[in-house]
Amino acid sequence: MGLLKTIPVFSPDPWSGYGYGADAGEVVLDGGSDPAKTEPLRWGDSHHPALSETGGKYDGRFIYINDRANGRIGMVDLRDFKTKQILDIPNLQTSHGGVFATPDTDYVHISSHTGAPLGAPDAFVELEDFAESFRGISTFLAVDQETGKCDLSESFQIELPPYTQDLADAGKLASDGFAFIPCFNTELATASTVDGAPLETSASKNDYDFLHVIDWRKAEEVVEAGKTEMVNGVRMIRLQTAIDEGILHFVPAPRSPHGVCVSPDGNYIVVSGKLDPTTSTYDIELIKRAIEEKTYQGTDVYGVPILDLDAVLVGLVEVGAGPLHTQFDAEGNAYTCMFIESSVAKWTLGPKAGVPESEAFKFVDKVSVHYNPGHLVNVGGDTTEPDGKYLVSMNKWSIDRYQTVGTLHPQNFQLIDLTGEKMRVLKDMPIGFGEPHYAQMVKADTIKAWETYPVGTDPLTMGPSEYATEPGNERIERDGDTVHVYMTAMRSHFTPDVIRVKKGDNVSLHITNIESTKDATHGFAIPGHNVQASIDPGEVVNIDFAANRSGDYAYYCTEFCSALHMEMQGWLLVEP
Amino acid sequence: MGLLKTIPVFSPDPWSGYGYGADAGEVVLDGGSDPAKTEPLRWGDSHHPALSETGGKYDGRFIYINDRANGRIGMVDLRDFKTKQILDIPNLQTSHGGVFATPDTDYVHISSHTGAPLGAPDAFVELEDFAESFRGISTFLAVDQETGKCDLSESFQIELPPYTQDLADAGKLASDGFAFIPCFNTELATASTVDGAPLETSASKNDYDFLHVIDWRKAEEVVEAGKTEMVNGVRMIRLQTAIDEGILHFVPAPRSPHGVCVSPDGNYIVVSGKLDPTTSTYDIELIKRAIEEKTYQGTDVYGVPILDLDAVLVGLVEVGAGPLHTQFDAEGNAYTCMFIESSVAKWTLGPKAGVPESEAFKFVDKVSVHYNPGHLVNVGGDTTEPDGKYLVSMNKWSIDRYQTVGTLHPQNFQLIDLTGEKMRVLKDMPIGFGEPHYAQMVKADTIKAWETYPVGTDPLTMGPSEYATEPGNERIERDGDTVHVYMTAMRSHFTPDVIRVKKGDNVSLHITNIESTKDATHGFAIPGHNVQASIDPGEVVNIDFAANRSGDYAYYCTEFCSALHMEMQGWLLVEP
Repeated sequence: MGLLKTIPVFSPDPWSGYGYGADAGEVVLDGGSDPAKTEPLRWGDSHHPALSETGGKYDGRFIYINDRANGRIGMVDLRDFKTKQILDIPNLQTSHGGVFATPDTDYVHISSHTGAPLGAPDAFVELEDFAESFRGISTFLAVDQETGKCDLSESFQIELPPYTQDLADAGKLASDGFAFIPCFNTELATASTVDGAPLETSASKNDYDFLHVIDWRKAEEVVEAGKTEMVNGVRMIRLQTAIDEGILHFVPAPRSPHGVCVSPDGNYIVVSGKLDPTTSTYDIELIKRAIEEKTYQGTDVYGVPILDLDAVLVGLVEVGAGPLHTQFDAEGNAYTCMFIESSVAKWTLGPKAGVPESEAFKFVDKVSVHYNPGHLVNVGGDTTEPDGKYLVSMNKWSIDRYQTVGTLHPQNFQLIDLTGEKMRVLKDMPIGFGEPHYAQMVKADTIKAWETYPVGTDPLTMGPSEYATEPGNERIERDGDTVHVYMTAMRSHFTPDVIRVKKGDNVSLHITNIESTKDATHGFAIPGHNVQASIDPGEVVNIDFAANRSGDYAYYCTEFCSALHMEMQGWLLVEP
Repeated sequence: MGLLKTIPVFSPDPWSGYGYGADAGEVVLDGGSDPAKTEPLRWGDSHHPALSETGGKYDGRFIYINDRANGRIGMVDLRDFKTKQILDIPNLQTSHGGVFATPDTDYVHISSHTGAPLGAPDAFVELEDFAESFRGISTFLAVDQETGKCDLSESFQIELPPYTQDLADAGKLASDGFAFIPCFNTELATASTVDGAPLETSASKNDYDFLHVIDWRKAEEVVEAGKTEMVNGVRMIRLQTAIDEGILHFVPAPRSPHGVCVSPDGNYIVVSGKLDPTTSTYDIELIKRAIEEKTYQGTDVYGVPILDLDAVLVGLVEVGAGPLHTQFDAEGNAYTCMFIESSVAKWTLGPKAGVPESEAFKFVDKVSVHYNPGHLVNVGGDTTEPDGKYLVSMNKWSIDRYQTVGTLHPQNFQLIDLTGEKMRVLKDMPIGFGEPHYAQMVKADTIKAWETYPVGTDPLTMGPSEYATEPGNERIERDGDTVHVYMTAMRSHFTPDVIRVKKGDNVSLHITNIESTKDATHGFAIPGHNVQASIDPGEVVNIDFAANRSGDYAYYCTEFCSALHMEMQGWLLVEP
């Protein structure tokens, strides 16, 4: 329960220099800011991470995470744990929990949270036209297997009704080729002025909302057959096409479900309605049969067929108040967190998960947590090979648990031992730097991170940089108003240690950390300028800035690198 | 060894919304960005925190921290743990370790690291004129005891030679009224092009550098007597005046000292030269006598009198390679971290600290740490009442200690038990979000933080906000092109939940979190806009932005506040 790293994705980070003048961060942040929009986005609400998978198991290559606020996705390369891409997804305004990788990471999925007007960007539509003009979106982002980056041109979207889509999951093994997305607000409520009641009331009326069952392999065929429209740069399967081609079906799910979780063998699909005290388990073979035999109980207002609940439901377990999210172990057990009653329930899956018929779908145990768990996670808990002897409950409130450190309180992770007859809370861990949402837990030996870069590496491409500078070849070259500085950094010196320019020049620094020792990171900062870079061993960092202040500026290393770290300094001399 | 909180000071922070459109953060960040400079600074290199003191003991009111990169200081109010002021200190370009509070927080001190040209802002001076035109600065910032803010008009500076001033400390009890600043680079080296050798060589030649001994009570009298010049908005005691008035003396200190630490009783001043294997201890009574009797061994090139080493040195203890920083316990022991040999040494002070004459100034014990401790800290370790049964060694490198998580590695804190005969490392704690420098450790019951704000509080003033909105009184008021929205937030609703404006309008949101329950923080974000606020219970947040995109934007709560948190949403409708 230690914090080894935080990775900046959507926001600048002063420690790593991400977004503070050094090119990799700026390039990634700018790349994720749609130029059609009015200001570069420097903020995100990162929510649901998805590790890349091979054969339904984490492979330690990449991790994807969405920006709930802006409908974007970020990709982190797990060789250096740095963000390589932010992609602004067309036709999506927000995205909550719709991120998962398909079992071989052919696609990374992201779906909308609140529906948005479908059409020209920044289209304005009256809320009274919500049902008609707003839409939800399911997006399958094609992944370049070399770089991990998402390629919009190979991707596709599926138009959905404007219900509020929530935490999605990929089918696997028995359910491979399917995607599952629960939703709430099938009431299509918007605001009190329209509905006469606040959203939390008007969106909580229906006894059943829906689980979207998407056949994405069939969708691929439909895309291949050209039955799509280009909408703002991405191929879209229209809602009617999705219905006609049998790509989209609904399953009734109890009141306002938050998440869906697929069992390790892919047989069981678990949904919990946050306003219902039960977990509902559906069987994928029954779902397939109901689709094939068109065992419908009707359609929704958009014509999407609703599978008959009795034909697909195999388990209903009463777990407690406010169930949100479920994880699994290798012995056929499921673990569900309850937000309202602040507890974690253990219950059994069915025979297909190795549970005897007589013990199937039964409540087993409960443990209290402090307070309000949003999610829980165990090792590989959403893969085909869960290995969970320990579970972490990610609690949103830490009230009464820690020293008060001001009006904004930490969250609280709690480690739960699953190995005994009763679950047992072993340890608390405060989280004092943000509000974690979803999490994934991977075995340490799955991660094959680089300890250093090969000397001369461009972190944007993970290959050799054209600006790599060897010791002895450091130089300053003027090209018109631009001054290129080819610099090396090693303990305890920047070469050159004097850069002389004129006020108004553009300065383009190319700094190579020529160290190959693990942890021999150097930093680079210039007083009075928004310039900060972290330069890891072997890395090449490019920094462009305008020398628009005259003066003598003592640039320096910002990482305590050596006994003579404080002498690791040079001078930017800007003549008036 | 848990992380309860990180406090944004010099950089925006998306979790707390600091600097992302909400006024408190923007006001503080902009206030610390000198408008004469060309871009607002959104980055700092926070280094040395100083808790406010009363009677030489931490009082839990405020904490100050410097920006090493830009010579600024930030003030955090420990009622809500939020930054209330950033002050750009005139005549100071950089500042490393020069921050301390005087024993009653009459002043907070900040001194320069690398000297800078003294004169007009952005003055350019050739490096060859370094000795003549560059200067170091010691700054005594007067503190408003109500707000904790520094008031430049009541503050003063002392001009110093352009040596590189480093980690300073305040005298206390026996040495009350004095300030101590070590320095290196008495060689006045600048760069290889000037000196013919890199700085780490040319600044490491002298066997002795200096400890500055500043009589700040005498300096106060000199300021009162008007013997100052206004230099860029602050009263400055010129170097010659400081010499003439007996305010500034030097004491020889072994090679390139990093820090100075004053013993709890104020009697002993400990300096370690980082290129010397010893700690040097000076006696304040001997220093006072040498000053009074002018027992000088000469002057430096600027005419500053150098006290005779033999007249003031009382202890020389060989501790190991690369000693940096020392903490104390209540039993007369000192603990010094060694950067180069990666260890912590325990040694004894002298008779005035209660140590028998025969045991005085002797090496006692050593413990290895992994690797390269920059600083160490125990409870109250730099106050008059240290209570250190445990020491934390803040190690810069964590090589071989943790799972590799990419090319930028965590730092490693290690907890050391001081209660046994031998020191013992008890626990490691990785630090995965930045590089900590100095630290202070305070007893939990000294901190009297607010759990919530009184409803309607402006965090900038900690008093009632003129924009506080009561339930039932929410409203939208147009004033020309500006639309004022008086909004309330409570579980699980924003009122109003529709804001209708025209493209081009300025929107001025005034949001009151009307909750009084601890931890019932709400967030506020607008998709597609750089707007994010954290609104703690009782807090009023003001957000101004231009509605320069048409469309329907689903603003929402970013803190998982309740079971219906995901329904806590409203609509910004921007007509074209």
